[in-house]
Amino acid sequence: MTKFDVLPSHVWPRSATRATNGEVTIAGVSLADLAQEFGTPLFVIDEADFRSRCQDMAAAFGGGENVHYASKAFLTRKVANWVAEEGLSLDVASENELRLALAADFPAERITVHGNNKSDGFLHLCVEAQVGHVVLDNHDEIARLDAVAAELGQSQDVLVRVKPGVEAHTHEMIATAHEDQKFGFSLASGSAFQAAEEAIAANNIRLVGLHCHVGSQVFDAQGFNMAAERVLGLMEQIVTSQPAEVANLLTILDLGGGYGIAYTANDESLDVAAVAADLHEKVTKSAESLGLATPTVMVEPGRAIAGPATVTVYEVGAIKDVHISDNETRRYLAVDGGMSDNIRPALYGAEYDIRLVNRTSDAKLTNTRVVGAHCESGDILINAADLPADIHSGDLVALAATGAYCYAMASNYNMFGKPAVVSVRDGVVSPMLRRQTVSDFLALEA
Amino acid sequence: MTKFDVLPSHVWPRSATRATNGEVTIAGVSLADLAQEFGTPLFVIDEADFRSRCQDMAAAFGGGENVHYASKAFLTRKVANWVAEEGLSLDVASENELRLALAADFPAERITVHGNNKSDGFLHLCVEAQVGHVVLDNHDEIARLDAVAAELGQSQDVLVRVKPGVEAHTHEMIATAHEDQKFGFSLASGSAFQAAEEAIAANNIRLVGLHCHVGSQVFDAQGFNMAAERVLGLMEQIVTSQPAEVANLLTILDLGGGYGIAYTANDESLDVAAVAADLHEKVTKSAESLGLATPTVMVEPGRAIAGPATVTVYEVGAIKDVHISDNETRRYLAVDGGMSDNIRPALYGAEYDIRLVNRTSDAKLTNTRVVGAHCESGDILINAADLPADIHSGDLVALAATGAYCYAMASNYNMFGKPAVVSVRDGVVSPMLRRQTVSDFLALEA
Repeated sequence: MTKFDVLPSHVWPRSATRATNGEVTIAGVSLADLAQEFGTPLFVIDEADFRSRCQDMAAAFGGGENVHYASKAFLTRKVANWVAEEGLSLDVASENELRLALAADFPAERITVHGNNKSDGFLHLCVEAQVGHVVLDNHDEIARLDAVAAELGQSQDVLVRVKPGVEAHTHEMIATAHEDQKFGFSLASGSAFQAAEEAIAANNIRLVGLHCHVGSQVFDAQGFNMAAERVLGLMEQIVTSQPAEVANLLTILDLGGGYGIAYTANDESLDVAAVAADLHEKVTKSAESLGLATPTVMVEPGRAIAGPATVTVYEVGAIKDVHISDNETRRYLAVDGGMSDNIRPALYGAEYDIRLVNRTSDAKLTNTRVVGAHCESGDILINAADLPADIHSGDLVALAATGAYCYAMASNYNMFGKPAVVSVRDGVVSPMLRRQTVSDFLALEA
Repeated sequence: MTKFDVLPSHVWPRSATRATNGEVTIAGVSLADLAQEFGTPLFVIDEADFRSRCQDMAAAFGGGENVHYASKAFLTRKVANWVAEEGLSLDVASENELRLALAADFPAERITVHGNNKSDGFLHLCVEAQVGHVVLDNHDEIARLDAVAAELGQSQDVLVRVKPGVEAHTHEMIATAHEDQKFGFSLASGSAFQAAEEAIAANNIRLVGLHCHVGSQVFDAQGFNMAAERVLGLMEQIVTSQPAEVANLLTILDLGGGYGIAYTANDESLDVAAVAADLHEKVTKSAESLGLATPTVMVEPGRAIAGPATVTVYEVGAIKDVHISDNETRRYLAVDGGMSDNIRPALYGAEYDIRLVNRTSDAKLTNTRVVGAHCESGDILINAADLPADIHSGDLVALAATGAYCYAMASNYNMFGKPAVVSVRDGVVSPMLRRQTVSDFLALEA
C-alpha cells in the first residue's frame, strides 16, 4: 500500500481498516457494499467508536453523569439511546432537541438545557419534563423560569452561564467566551454575580452551579483552566455572600464543550485523559486556595464524541483539469454531494481527510480540489489535496470525521435530499436515517 | 414616522407599506396578523412583486422565453407555476430541481438544465422529459448524453458552458467566471472549442448555443459585455469551421445569471432595462463586427426575481446589553430563527435591512447586533444596525430581500424546523410551505 492508502488512525473511525481486497471497511463492513446498498452520499457511523469515546470521556471526567453529550453535533433517537446506555448525560440547546431527546426516552434528570433565547413554551417544557438543569442565559429568563416553575408547582435546578472573558485559540467564528457575544452573563461587569443573586432569590429555582464555555476545537486545558479559575472566583464570591444552606447547593462547575478532534493527518489528536487530569488538578487547587469544596466538574463534548465516528462516502463524478497558471494544473474532482451535506468547509474553512475507499491506488498524486455537485462555485469540500491521478468516475471516496455538524447542519440546497445515515457494529448494518427525496419537499407544500 | 419607520422601497417588496396603525403590510396583509396565524419565523412572499419582476425581465430581454428563472434561488410548485404563467423559462441545476419542475407541470421545452456533475440517471431524465436545453459542462458528459439520447431515440439540444475568463466584481465566494473553478470549458485553452466540435460530431445532440456566467450581485453590463464579446468570438470560430446547416443552428448566447439586488438602504438597485439595453447593443455590435447574425440573448436571473419579493418575520426574544469597551455598549437582540433559516450572513458576510413591523417607534437608536437562537456564537443575522432602543421581547421584526438562497439553503441546525412560507396577493393569504416539526425528523428515522 502507498502512503495515501493508509488511513490516518487518529482521524478515521477506530474500526476503519483497509481490507486485503483494497476496500475500506468499518466494523468489518465494506464502504463499497454500503454505497451499493444505500446509495451515495452516505454517512456511515462506527457505533463502537462513538460508544468508546463516550467511555473515554466518562473515565476522564469521573463518570458519565458528568459528561453531557452536546446534541447539536448530531442527534437521533438511536444516538440518544447510545448516550443513555453509556451512562452519559445530555446537553440540548433547543426545544426540538429536547423534544427529540424525550421522544427517545432519554432520562430527563440527566438533561441540561441551553439556549440564548428560550421561549416561555420551551421553559415550560423543561420544567414539565423535569430536566436536570436549565442554564440561565439572561436576566429576564430568571424571572420567567421562576414563574413557569411556580405555575407548575415545581422547583427547577439551574446553572448560571458566565462569560469569563477567556477565549481559547480557535477559529473566530466559533469562539464563544470573550465578552462581545450573545451568550451568558459577564463576569467582569458584575452581571453574573447579580444573576446568581437573582436566581437564589427566586422561590422556584435552585442555583446549583455555574457554567462557562471557552471555544471550539481546543486541545489543551489552558483555556479551560483559566476560565475555571475565574468562574471559581465568582463561586467563592457567591458562597461567601450566602447562608450555608444556599452556598452548599452550589456544587457544579460546568466547563462546557470545545474538545477538539483531528480532521486531517497533520492535526494533533486530543488526549482526553491528560486534559481532564490537568483540569481537575487546577480546579482542585483553585478551589482549595479559595476555601471552596472541590466542585463537580461537568463537560459538554459533542464533536469529540460524534465527530471521529463517522465518514461520508461519495461517488466520484466529473473530473476536470484546469490550467490555473502557465505551468500549473488543478484537477477538479466532483462528487455527488457537497455543501448541502457538509457546509463546514465553506462556512469555517474546515479541512478534511479524503481517501479512495473502493480500492487502493499506486498512481502518482496530483493536486486536486474536491468539489460538490451544487450550482455554486464556492461548493468546495477540500480545497487542495494530493490524490491519485487514476481516480475516475465511479470510484468511491470518503471524508473522515464528518460525524459532527455535517448532517446536523445539512441543507436541501439545489433540492438535494439529506443523505441516508447508517451505523455499523460488529459486521452488522443498521439504517439510522433514510435519504430524503423530492416527495419529502412536496409533502411540505400546501 | 421616523426615518427608521420608513421602509426603503428599493429593498422591500413593492407592495410593502406601513399602515396607519404602524404595522407593516404586504399586499394589504399585516405581517403581525400573519405572524399570529402562522407563527415565526415566517417567510412572506409578495406574489405580485415576484410576478412583476418576471415581467420586467421579460420586457427587458425581449420576451419571457429568453429569461430562465434560476430555480436554485427558491423553488416550489407554486413558484414554478408563477414562472410558467408569466411566460418565463426555467433553469434547473439538479435532478431534484428538475423533478420538482416536472411535478409542477412546467413545460419541459422551456427548461434549461445545468450541473457540473450530472449523473447518467439525471441525463436520462432530461432527455426523456424532453427538456429544452442541457448545458454541457465537461467532455465526458458529451459522450454520455449522446449515448442516453441514442438509447431513447431522441435528439437533445445543448449549449456548451464556456469559461470566458471574466470575473465581475463581487464577493469571492460567489464569483464564477475565472478559470480556476469547477464549471464549464476554458475558452483560453481551446477546451470550449473542442467541446463544441465534439457536440457537433455527436449524432444525437444538437449544439444550439453557448453559455457563460460571470458572477453574482452584478449591477452593470460591463462584465456581461466583456464575456459576451469573448464568447461571440468563440461562436464565430465555430460557425466559420462548420457547414451552414450546422452553423445556422447556433443561435443562442446565454449569459447566465448574476443580476444584483439591493439588500440594504445604501445598496444601489438594478436597472434591468438599462443593463439589458446596454448588453443587447454590445452583443449586436460585436456580432456584426464578427459577421455573425445577432444571437438570441438568454439570461438566468434567480435572486433578481425571487429575492426582493420576500421578507422573514421574527419575534424578538432575549435582549442583552454588552460592554464591548470602556465607553461602548452593544445590544444583542435575539430572534427566534437565525443561521438555520438564513445562512448568508455567516457564509458570505451578507447584509440585510431590518425593521420593526408590528409598530413604529420614535425611541432613540442604539447599536444593535441581531442574533439567532442557535447554540453558536457565529449565529449572527445582522452584525451592526441602529435600532430603536425600545424594541422589546414580543416585538416583531422583519428582514427584507430574503426570497433567494434563504429558504433554499435552510438547514435544521439545532433541530429547528424550516419555517412556514406564505404568499400574499391583493389581501389574500396563500400558505405555500408548512413549518417542519420534530415529527418530520422522526419520520426519517429507521
